[in-house]
Amino acid sequence: MTKINYFEELSEFISIKSISTYREYKNEMEKAVEWLKKKIETLGFKVNIYNKNGHPIVYGNLNNHKDKPTMLIYGHYDVQPPEPLEEWETEPFKLTEKGDFLYARGVSDDKGQLFAHIKALEIFKKEKGEIPFNVKVIFEGEEEIGSPTLPEFLMENKNELKADFAIISDNPMLSRGLPSISYGLRGLLYIEIKLTGPDRDLHSGRFGGVIPNPCIHLCKILSSIKGKDGRIKINGFYEDVLELKKEERENFDKLPISDNDYKLMAKVKKLEKEKTFSAIECIWTRPSFDINGITGGFQGEGTKTIIPSFAKAHLSFRLVPKQDPDKVFKLVEKFLLKNCPKNLKIEIKKKENAFPVLVNIKNKFLNKIRKGMENGFGTEVYLIRQGGTIPVVSLIQNYLKTPVILMGLGLPDENAHAPNEKLLKDNFINGVKSLLEFYKDL
Amino acid sequence: MTKINYFEELSEFISIKSISTYREYKNEMEKAVEWLKKKIETLGFKVNIYNKNGHPIVYGNLNNHKDKPTMLIYGHYDVQPPEPLEEWETEPFKLTEKGDFLYARGVSDDKGQLFAHIKALEIFKKEKGEIPFNVKVIFEGEEEIGSPTLPEFLMENKNELKADFAIISDNPMLSRGLPSISYGLRGLLYIEIKLTGPDRDLHSGRFGGVIPNPCIHLCKILSSIKGKDGRIKINGFYEDVLELKKEERENFDKLPISDNDYKLMAKVKKLEKEKTFSAIECIWTRPSFDINGITGGFQGEGTKTIIPSFAKAHLSFRLVPKQDPDKVFKLVEKFLLKNCPKNLKIEIKKKENAFPVLVNIKNKFLNKIRKGMENGFGTEVYLIRQGGTIPVVSLIQNYLKTPVILMGLGLPDENAHAPNEKLLKDNFINGVKSLLEFYKDL
Repeated sequence: MTKINYFEELSEFISIKSISTYREYKNEMEKAVEWLKKKIETLGFKVNIYNKNGHPIVYGNLNNHKDKPTMLIYGHYDVQPPEPLEEWETEPFKLTEKGDFLYARGVSDDKGQLFAHIKALEIFKKEKGEIPFNVKVIFEGEEEIGSPTLPEFLMENKNELKADFAIISDNPMLSRGLPSISYGLRGLLYIEIKLTGPDRDLHSGRFGGVIPNPCIHLCKILSSIKGKDGRIKINGFYEDVLELKKEERENFDKLPISDNDYKLMAKVKKLEKEKTFSAIECIWTRPSFDINGITGGFQGEGTKTIIPSFAKAHLSFRLVPKQDPDKVFKLVEKFLLKNCPKNLKIEIKKKENAFPVLVNIKNKFLNKIRKGMENGFGTEVYLIRQGGTIPVVSLIQNYLKTPVILMGLGLPDENAHAPNEKLLKDNFINGVKSLLEFYKDL
Repeated sequence: MTKINYFEELSEFISIKSISTYREYKNEMEKAVEWLKKKIETLGFKVNIYNKNGHPIVYGNLNNHKDKPTMLIYGHYDVQPPEPLEEWETEPFKLTEKGDFLYARGVSDDKGQLFAHIKALEIFKKEKGEIPFNVKVIFEGEEEIGSPTLPEFLMENKNELKADFAIISDNPMLSRGLPSISYGLRGLLYIEIKLTGPDRDLHSGRFGGVIPNPCIHLCKILSSIKGKDGRIKINGFYEDVLELKKEERENFDKLPISDNDYKLMAKVKKLEKEKTFSAIECIWTRPSFDINGITGGFQGEGTKTIIPSFAKAHLSFRLVPKQDPDKVFKLVEKFLLKNCPKNLKIEIKKKENAFPVLVNIKNKFLNKIRKGMENGFGTEVYLIRQGGTIPVVSLIQNYLKTPVILMGLGLPDENAHAPNEKLLKDNFINGVKSLLEFYKDL
């Protein structure tokens, strides 16, 4: 196999300060777009730059053989701001090798992982002379600011973007030495609730004992959502929940992660979960409810004897296939309204929602990628789900109806979004090797 | 009756900027002490200045006839800061007559009300030649900063301060045209509770579904304190609660305040209370529970998908005779500990406590003062209790075992602690007249 040379090119890509958050980096964003355009044009891609008010999406298209499978690659070229600068041990925008790792802003999230795909296509083309399947790439420049343009782009180009599967490397694997493919994500429903009693704070001496206290009622309502058995008590909540399949369960049982590991990671004395599921099963395949924040009345150091006028909370539900966040929102809203006493004003706002994601584990491309990775990494590759939500993945799944396979080349603790972001060199190299093996099989 | 001249003297007293909160007003505090000392020495009082680290207590003693009743007068010469200055319509430290009211910082709280007692003694002495009973006065300079020195002073001078009753004018009457005497106050137990789950905020995607969420558990615990019937569900909580007497109930029924008035004052759609008691009975004679504030996790405008590390709340209980705040604290603590799951850390802090206050409505001095007020105000005087807590009154009741009678000359909305503080001129004058009538009867 050809030696994989990547350092110089990746250094160049990394050195472009493509920080999407800061307006004054608009030029750098354009430099990154140009860099990517040139790079894939060399490989034969036809490139379109989709530019609305935000940062451009680089869209590339290679080949158009009707009888060949089509792969859609997604990645993002924008990065988080590097601050706080004083905590970096290397230059944030200078790719630096240190021990087993490469250090730089964006090296893991997502420039390094994105570049593995370009590098693999380049090597494959050099070795084979041509790429014998269809490839479409979407390189986004707004992932770190919530992908405001992406939905529109996907919707407008639905037909053009058709593919047999999508592959994304923008996430961590299970852990070092345990490469994995994620084929499922939980969705999200995030709600803000506000209860108002009196129209101003009242003196708890002059009024205490006859006034509905919004903090007390918010506590009552929120504490009725989840039962002692760990299940959510909202009518119809579990209706669309896909039961965990025996085969998946057996796969999960083989993973080298126990309930105890979660206890240690979270540093809690005892987990709190549905009894009939392991920790991993709960986090990956069961919906959950959390209060993310609660606020009301006096919160300072001293004392203040008031009946607060209002109380608020942020609630969220992680959803699993095939729950629909809009449908669940209606159920939750009904429950909250029903449980709120009539003498309080209630306001319920939906702040965020994302569909859960699931790819059939029998999907042939998923299994081909897995085989490729087993060759590339030289070890077993686990099929896993994740408890979190990656909005981009939900969007691609929902707008394009394309199964999305997550081939994470990162590690869980590579300081994405923090100083000293890093990427394991071996994961980059084995990732490229894995893709080459997979391409052969495609 | 002699014409009551008070404006010039009260102006002088008001013009002294005796703001106890600000260190730089130390000289003004001393000026106020000197002013009071001189004023009561003229009446024949022996004066002692009790000066520890804080602001002095002016203690005066007039006569010492063993066979005569002894009256203890309490008042405070310190005032709240006048800020925000731009909201005042008159000069804060210049006594200003406008319509039926006198305007100035401290005119109601408490310099004006305090001065009514000095003025009454002065007139009485001038008219009768001598004061035929014993009088002790305590003028405090730290009421607005929590009376840090007073407990020590009362304890050290327990015997010296013995009296048959104490009279305080530092509170509002029922409302304009409805003079009243308060013979009862609720006590207070104020608690801070903190629940800690994981030692840091966790990602609700990576962990949601297996981790004890401190916000949820705090809600569960706090919502179990009070039942739907408005009663507090803590074991033993009502054990020492003195039942409302038939006679008191009949008195309250005659008061021109209905449940509906409370609904209007609080601007809520429906009151929430124990069914077998009226609003006034609940507020004056029944204990209550309120959450004064609650806080935990993310409270900003956007969204943050975390399982918060901790959640905190301020709780308070208003207590009624003969509940003991220390005993109640132990019951509450036991309840909270019992209801907290073992996988969370719980911290409970007592932040404030005050005993409830109650004077027997058959007390002869109370009834003599009432008669005096009926003559002075020329109308019926109601016997009421209050739902709030006046720590100074609890202290005097508890340290000196002296019944404390509250002859409020203020009105409920005189902007004490706010800009444009005022006092109804007629209430001052009728207050002095009432005291003169009462002295005759003593």
